[in-house]
Amino acid sequence: MQSKESMLKIAERTFNSRLFTGTGKFSSAAVMEEAFLASGSELVTVALKRVDVKKQDQDDFVVRLKYPHIHLLPNTSGVRNAKEAVFAAQLAREALETNWIKLEIHPDPKYLMPDPIETLKATEELSKMGFIVLPYIHADPVLCKRLEDAGTAAVMPLGSPIGSNKGLKTIDFLEIIISQSHVPVIVDAGIGSPSDAAWAMEIGADAVLVNTAIAVSQNPVLMAQAFKLAVESGRMAFEARLASPVNYAVASSPLTSFLDE
Amino acid sequence: MQSKESMLKIAERTFNSRLFTGTGKFSSAAVMEEAFLASGSELVTVALKRVDVKKQDQDDFVVRLKYPHIHLLPNTSGVRNAKEAVFAAQLAREALETNWIKLEIHPDPKYLMPDPIETLKATEELSKMGFIVLPYIHADPVLCKRLEDAGTAAVMPLGSPIGSNKGLKTIDFLEIIISQSHVPVIVDAGIGSPSDAAWAMEIGADAVLVNTAIAVSQNPVLMAQAFKLAVESGRMAFEARLASPVNYAVASSPLTSFLDE
Amino acid sequence: MQSKESMLKIAERTFNSRLFTGTGKFSSAAVMEEAFLASGSELVTVALKRVDVKKQDQDDFVVRLKYPHIHLLPNTSGVRNAKEAVFAAQLAREALETNWIKLEIHPDPKYLMPDPIETLKATEELSKMGFIVLPYIHADPVLCKRLEDAGTAAVMPLGSPIGSNKGLKTIDFLEIIISQSHVPVIVDAGIGSPSDAAWAMEIGADAVLVNTAIAVSQNPVLMAQAFKLAVESGRMAFEARLASPVNYAVASSPLTSFLDE
Amino acid sequence: MQSKESMLKIAERTFNSRLFTGTGKFSSAAVMEEAFLASGSELVTVALKRVDVKKQDQDDFVVRLKYPHIHLLPNTSGVRNAKEAVFAAQLAREALETNWIKLEIHPDPKYLMPDPIETLKATEELSKMGFIVLPYIHADPVLCKRLEDAGTAAVMPLGSPIGSNKGLKTIDFLEIIISQSHVPVIVDAGIGSPSDAAWAMEIGADAVLVNTAIAVSQNPVLMAQAFKLAVESGRMAFEARLASPVNYAVASSPLTSFLDE
Repeated sequence: MQSKESMLKIAERTFNSRLFTGTGKFSSAAVMEEAFLASGSELVTVALKRVDVKKQDQDDFVVRLKYPHIHLLPNTSGVRNAKEAVFAAQLAREALETNWIKLEIHPDPKYLMPDPIETLKATEELSKMGFIVLPYIHADPVLCKRLEDAGTAAVMPLGSPIGSNKGLKTIDFLEIIISQSHVPVIVDAGIGSPSDAAWAMEIGADAVLVNTAIAVSQNPVLMAQAFKLAVESGRMAFEARLASPVNYAVASSPLTSFLDE
Repeated sequence: MQSKESMLKIAERTFNSRLFTGTGKFSSAAVMEEAFLASGSELVTVALKRVDVKKQDQDDFVVRLKYPHIHLLPNTSGVRNAKEAVFAAQLAREALETNWIKLEIHPDPKYLMPDPIETLKATEELSKMGFIVLPYIHADPVLCKRLEDAGTAAVMPLGSPIGSNKGLKTIDFLEIIISQSHVPVIVDAGIGSPSDAAWAMEIGADAVLVNTAIAVSQNPVLMAQAFKLAVESGRMAFEARLASPVNYAVASSPLTSFLDE
Repeated sequence: MQSKESMLKIAERTFNSRLFTGTGKFSSAAVMEEAFLASGSELVTVALKRVDVKKQDQDDFVVRLKYPHIHLLPNTSGVRNAKEAVFAAQLAREALETNWIKLEIHPDPKYLMPDPIETLKATEELSKMGFIVLPYIHADPVLCKRLEDAGTAAVMPLGSPIGSNKGLKTIDFLEIIISQSHVPVIVDAGIGSPSDAAWAMEIGADAVLVNTAIAVSQNPVLMAQAFKLAVESGRMAFEARLASPVNYAVASSPLTSFLDE
Repeated sequence: MQSKESMLKIAERTFNSRLFTGTGKFSSAAVMEEAFLASGSELVTVALKRVDVKKQDQDDFVVRLKYPHIHLLPNTSGVRNAKEAVFAAQLAREALETNWIKLEIHPDPKYLMPDPIETLKATEELSKMGFIVLPYIHADPVLCKRLEDAGTAAVMPLGSPIGSNKGLKTIDFLEIIISQSHVPVIVDAGIGSPSDAAWAMEIGADAVLVNTAIAVSQNPVLMAQAFKLAVESGRMAFEARLASPVNYAVASSPLTSFLDE
């Protein structure tokens, strides 16, 4: 459907879908599987806890992800610093046979806000070790540039705190990040509705990652489909260029003079 | 695709599409036609000025709308009071052979804000005369209930001033209106982007009317398609029920304990 | 302190304070009295229920308001239409010996949104009868102009639903109302914090009415003082003209070149 | 006026005023001086460029600040990394005889967003050297905690980009920072109006720094006074506890039954 140039590319991989998903909070593995298929997503992040590092008895959630079009993105959720993150990335590479890693380093157990210092350090190390690193970070424009210098494959700034469903509270900073970035910008946390996802795409985000809003919906499969359409819609709007808000109303229906004729 | 029960019904007519459009501000009639086809819209509002009331030499914009799936909704844009609106509705009925009328009564030429008093009066009169009335109004919950009593077929509260592209500035009042309404609620003005349209649908609007944001886009056809997907997406999300925002972050990726094992 | 020209004038009365208050929801009459003195308010609205229409045994809340600088503004809260409002205004005039009346006509008991049609009708009648009418209304620019034509002494558009503390959800419409009005504009409902009150004054509102946010605070007297300062602050900022938001940062500390010298 | 316990304390210094200011963008040194006196501010930040490091021929802007109640806070605006910042802090200490330093490290000349990595590094070094460090940072909750560990005297998260007047775009993150901080939280950039300043104080910020909004106002002296009142108001409201927003309107004027009596 879309032209090759307009497809998202991270490292050497291209993606037809700009909607990334995650395995958390689903009521069952079967529902999750069906939702992912409805979403069209080609990148699914999975916590290392889900992964049998000895490769013998995989979690049903991981087994359900064995589709050729779905690329697994292990994440380091739960680690508190760069050292633990590097160790976790190595475990994940062993277990899942991928050198892609989503960095999540959040020392704070309440709001799960990411640590900028440790994230940069881990990105530097992991990039040197040949990993494709996608770090979850605060919407900090300068940090994004430093991560680029450190070899990151993409940046994943948050919209609002993880799991909060509060939407794009960082919109002013996401716009700065997008305007300056040389790597894909993936809005990662807080997206609570398809309209949030569409908005992120409209301002030029390269992709969004949505997990909670799909998983805890009353109908995750339908909601996954809703997000699929929203992301496509937002991307189209970005390409078609939105008009700017104006302060004075200008009627789309011209004032008629028929009454005076 | 969608079940009969979930389809929008206004008066005796059912609609597959919940995206309504208008003919204003397009650069050419050909672009407008292509955009409408891409939008999937089945209801298009047209200013009376476009209409040749003597039926001899129709405006090219009107001729382009002759598709069986497109229902014309003449509007009274330009009238200043109920009396002029009733006269305009009668002209429109003659010219376009429809008893549907979108009431737009705005005495103020700068912001084009609707007049609640004259709109109610005209709705009462036109309903008695057998018209299917869709009034454009401020997002005023009490006025909406009074229009219901007066026989309105739907209510069309504004999101923000016409043509402003400012989005859903009236969201708190739209939610009250939707929770109380017994007739379809169509969000009418100010929708500037697909994410706005999706948001209106997510909170339970029955449809949205979008004109300026499509017409003045750099690529109206692609933008029309973007709005089509956004409206479908928002409706799905409404049906699948969104989760509520929460104040504390709850990670979708559970905190792993693998490091301590 | 302030020059005569900059003082608020409604009908023939001038006000030193642009903070109006109300008697609802206070835990005791004594706390209310102290809060009003701290607020500096010179206009206090009181529900007719509080008033002994036979003038024999006044409610303690009304007795507490007998200060020369405090002008009572009876309101019609509880009436459902213009007829009841006119009757209530007459009762209030008898009981409180004032021809000032705050019109509140809200048929809806849940959100207490005002009725535009009945409010206009009552304003017309009461103005003719010599009342000084201050109508509580939705932030509807056209309605405000019609109320002017009907002889209203001021307009009192809402910021958000009464008692919701949601702040200025109608800001875009308040700005239009203020830019067009020839009578004082008093923002009436929903103001939940001093910052809301300051904001309303900054955009040019002539006054604000605050009740719930003061009355239900843990310290109503201190909160009343906070609102007093906020209203004064917002008015000063309006007179000193705020700068406009800009999209590019411009440092207030100039980039130094001292390092290169 | 205020009790000792409620006064702001940074390092060993207490402040009567929670409004901090800066010397940038004023049209003249005389206007600046008058504005500062009207503001009541006791902490004024000054760019090193303004300072004659050889102490011979001080800039008129610095000379104007010689009041016993005004404490100078030199800032490092213009430096690009920790090394330059440390050098600048030492220069400032020489020139102005203060060990207080406001760290501003922004490698990006367009948006002047702060660098989290270099700021932490400089804070560590300068704290060890005996400086009282006040770092300007993004509203990043984890970074704030790390700065605490590094010995910072306060944190200065931004509300929106410097000089943008966009207000508190980071409010959700400021609330997290305030709830977790053991050092004073001073909201530093983007405050465009007194209502913004009041809002920051209402949520519990310890102080705000305002420069551009005062300096570029049409009447900087009056605007300085407006900010003074707003900061006092917001602090009072914080101490008096605001009520929470509610979804259903609850009238402050009780529904009267007088009509049915």
